[in-house]
Amino acid sequence: MEKVTVGPMPYMSVMPTVLVGANVKGKANYMTAAWATVACMAPPMVCVAINKARYTAAGIGENKTFSLNIPSAGQVIETDHCGLVSGAQVDKSGVFHSFYGRLKTAPLAGECPVNIECRLFKSVECGSHVLFIGEVAEIHADSSCLTDGKPDIAKINPVVYSQSAYFGVGKEIGKAFSAGKKYPGK
Amino acid sequence: MEKVTVGPMPYMSVMPTVLVGANVKGKANYMTAAWATVACMAPPMVCVAINKARYTAAGIGENKTFSLNIPSAGQVIETDHCGLVSGAQVDKSGVFHSFYGRLKTAPLAGECPVNIECRLFKSVECGSHVLFIGEVAEIHADSSCLTDGKPDIAKINPVVYSQSAYFGVGKEIGKAFSAGKKYPGK
Repeated sequence: MEKVTVGPMPYMSVMPTVLVGANVKGKANYMTAAWATVACMAPPMVCVAINKARYTAAGIGENKTFSLNIPSAGQVIETDHCGLVSGAQVDKSGVFHSFYGRLKTAPLAGECPVNIECRLFKSVECGSHVLFIGEVAEIHADSSCLTDGKPDIAKINPVVYSQSAYFGVGKEIGKAFSAGKKYPGK
Repeated sequence: MEKVTVGPMPYMSVMPTVLVGANVKGKANYMTAAWATVACMAPPMVCVAINKARYTAAGIGENKTFSLNIPSAGQVIETDHCGLVSGAQVDKSGVFHSFYGRLKTAPLAGECPVNIECRLFKSVECGSHVLFIGEVAEIHADSSCLTDGKPDIAKINPVVYSQSAYFGVGKEIGKAFSAGKKYPGK
């Protein structure tokens, strides 16, 4: 296999599509993001990288709370809309019906099947972006999207993000902590 | 839609499946991980959360370098194997053919279509896990996986991770910064 170098760039194979919810000047705002993942198991934490000039970054700084809302594949238009326009110019508080949970200041998008409510743990200045790490205060979910009390990917039908496009989730190709038992070597 | 709370947990809808490469005591080691994403655009950075007790965490501390290697769907067995066994007990240096790039101490898995070579920028202690943020020093890729000089998801066929299972990538359902133009307005 011939390897080539393509230069340093902010690359990741696949990412989740999320809507970052934050109150800005007392009003709910939602921003599309994909640079998000889990940051810690105990206590449970997630993180999301946001350009420091963004309206949402100001809101997180203001309240020290935010949410990551998981849209379903059927919500790509609303989701992408929240990435096309800034809350500084356009009021996005009506794109979703907001509700509030334990933290009172992190708006949660009612139409999204899963809502991760976070208390800011740490902001890491990386350069153009700030990595916001949040402790998960609560997870809210549509009861119809749960199986045995946990969010179920088949019912949620989340959106994968990669190279400026949205994708569905494909077929299951193996179980973790299991598929590797077929490894022939030592 | 009836909302219920399911308690705080380390949840994310979909995540990338990666192999974290690090030299530990001078030998290449690869660990399966999914809690990874992009952390910054300029300079380009990625991050990965690793249990602080892991053998790989020690290696990153030792050299201040690591790699994130992107396996293809056909490499699920080798990939999961690297999550089943610890480098402390089993020598995983032969699972992939390692090569080294600019940083000399971050092993890159030759069989993986994309290799992200990183210089440690910051380690954030979150609790059970450390979030390692790395500046991307170089991206290496199989020439057969590029389109117009960039990694191409259709050629890479990466692995999505969610709820302890591996999935392929599904169909494209929209373009970012475009699909939202159909939003009917406030």
